[in-house]
Amino acid sequence: MIHKILLLGAGRVGKAITFDLTTDFDLTVADRDTTSLKKLAEKYGAKTIVSDLKNANTLSKLVAGFDLIIGAVPGNMGFETAQTVLKAGKDYIDISFFEEDAFRLKELALKQGVMMITDAGVAPGLDNLLLGYHNDRMKVSSFKCLVGGLPRHPEAPFNYKAPFSPIDVIAEYTRPARFVKAGKVIEKPALTDSELFTLKKKITLEAFLTDGLRTLLDTMPHIPDMVEKTLRYPGHRELMQCYEAAGFFSEEPVNIDGVSIRPVDLTTRLFFPMWQYADGEEEFTVMQVLIEGNESGRQVRYTYDIFDRFDKMSGMSSMARTTGF
Amino acid sequence: MIHKILLLGAGRVGKAITFDLTTDFDLTVADRDTTSLKKLAEKYGAKTIVSDLKNANTLSKLVAGFDLIIGAVPGNMGFETAQTVLKAGKDYIDISFFEEDAFRLKELALKQGVMMITDAGVAPGLDNLLLGYHNDRMKVSSFKCLVGGLPRHPEAPFNYKAPFSPIDVIAEYTRPARFVKAGKVIEKPALTDSELFTLKKKITLEAFLTDGLRTLLDTMPHIPDMVEKTLRYPGHRELMQCYEAAGFFSEEPVNIDGVSIRPVDLTTRLFFPMWQYADGEEEFTVMQVLIEGNESGRQVRYTYDIFDRFDKMSGMSSMARTTGF
Repeated sequence: MIHKILLLGAGRVGKAITFDLTTDFDLTVADRDTTSLKKLAEKYGAKTIVSDLKNANTLSKLVAGFDLIIGAVPGNMGFETAQTVLKAGKDYIDISFFEEDAFRLKELALKQGVMMITDAGVAPGLDNLLLGYHNDRMKVSSFKCLVGGLPRHPEAPFNYKAPFSPIDVIAEYTRPARFVKAGKVIEKPALTDSELFTLKKKITLEAFLTDGLRTLLDTMPHIPDMVEKTLRYPGHRELMQCYEAAGFFSEEPVNIDGVSIRPVDLTTRLFFPMWQYADGEEEFTVMQVLIEGNESGRQVRYTYDIFDRFDKMSGMSSMARTTGF
Repeated sequence: MIHKILLLGAGRVGKAITFDLTTDFDLTVADRDTTSLKKLAEKYGAKTIVSDLKNANTLSKLVAGFDLIIGAVPGNMGFETAQTVLKAGKDYIDISFFEEDAFRLKELALKQGVMMITDAGVAPGLDNLLLGYHNDRMKVSSFKCLVGGLPRHPEAPFNYKAPFSPIDVIAEYTRPARFVKAGKVIEKPALTDSELFTLKKKITLEAFLTDGLRTLLDTMPHIPDMVEKTLRYPGHRELMQCYEAAGFFSEEPVNIDGVSIRPVDLTTRLFFPMWQYADGEEEFTVMQVLIEGNESGRQVRYTYDIFDRFDKMSGMSSMARTTGF
């Protein structure tokens, strides 16, 4: 029975988690930012603790008195935070989307007798839960997930905005994408294999490969066809390919008049102000999950459509809501 | 009567000029690059002088023994070279396409009793000669010039290569374009007012505004409609607009982790290897000039089509040929 929950991180998603959990649980939120904590205390009556979560010693002591820990820290802090929590012998749910391989923590979790649910967001996250549910009830032959978070009113030339740093989005566009076809893991450049997708019968989007299957590649080796694609407004993909082709996404330093610079750092810097959502700007999150296979001798297909919008009342973005809830 | 001609510059265009003039004139070529000079001496029997043309004193003495000076120096040396030649009391023909206003040298030329023909390339250059010819014979109401130099086999994403530094091309794309409509000089961003153009009934190109009228804005104030556009393969214009919109053409330094950089310098650096013509790569230069007006009481329209290709025999590009000849 869970009594006391500790939430690490009072950012955008942390706020949504706080909103969702304070009524039914004894929730405490920890962050180094006192302003964010104060807002959560005032708005949702959450208990708060000011704490430097980057310090493993501090964090170990902090988690001691709680039954469950939830991590909503930035991606680059995700892996170490998870490791510290598991070492401290606590169950952990993580939405940080860290880059490291989560299975590196498997042995530690088993040794400590604790559980960690990683990638617990929208995709990866909800789609994994859906697939896990059906995988227990049928022989899944095919899994497909299309997902994206987008501004309601796209503007040229990007037709896109990001609720986080452009560098994380650019990483999705440059990292080779893995998918499974006829039982084989295939790697292709991201931004390829595009297809159109019509949202609510009126908005045309485009889906393309990104490396989003992550843990499914390890946990579902028996499913012969699996693919994850990212949704954007048409035009965005070609545009990103053009920036990439010109070398603007390169991490290889270039020397200009004696000054060394990684093109991607300039690009991130230039994109940042243009990819920022304005205060209260309408956006939405959309996901479609298709699961096909044989259930009790019959060929079946399950389709899940998830659509969420920016919530004016709470000022919470669909990304924060769908990830946090 | 012209006996002795001095050509300043043994580069790509200098080579074409040498090829064109050595048979009929007593031509001497001056450059600081001995290798280039040696080639011109061997191939075309040109007389050569090794000289630092950037040094005004050296240049003044150098021009003394010649009847006519032709300048084929880089654009950034163009204005000063012209000034030195005029000061030395010599007639001058210039193809350097310098950025400064040529009329700043008018008083000097008048005082010295010498003549300078500036912008003596393809466009500006040939189109000015054509307009000047008809302007003496009719009441011109409209002048239009479409011009471009392009690879024969365009490659994605740029569909373009440049026989000179990308920074000069980017300057054409970012400098506001001036044109004349109903007697008024109008300024618009470059890369706008696009229209399609079919070359030789099979290649579709796209024309868009660039600031190419230059001296015509001063010398032909009585013509009510004048416009100059640059020709590229379709797609190039939008692509350049996307780079510009993202800030990659900006000359405003950006600070990245304590390092200051002008985005356009990184862009030029990245584009350079991709915009370079391979040795012997096929390219072409195309220009269409339309002159309309009233001639001897009748409404007339003159159309000039110029098309030139890379010449395999001499290894000279159409750009060098059309500019040099």
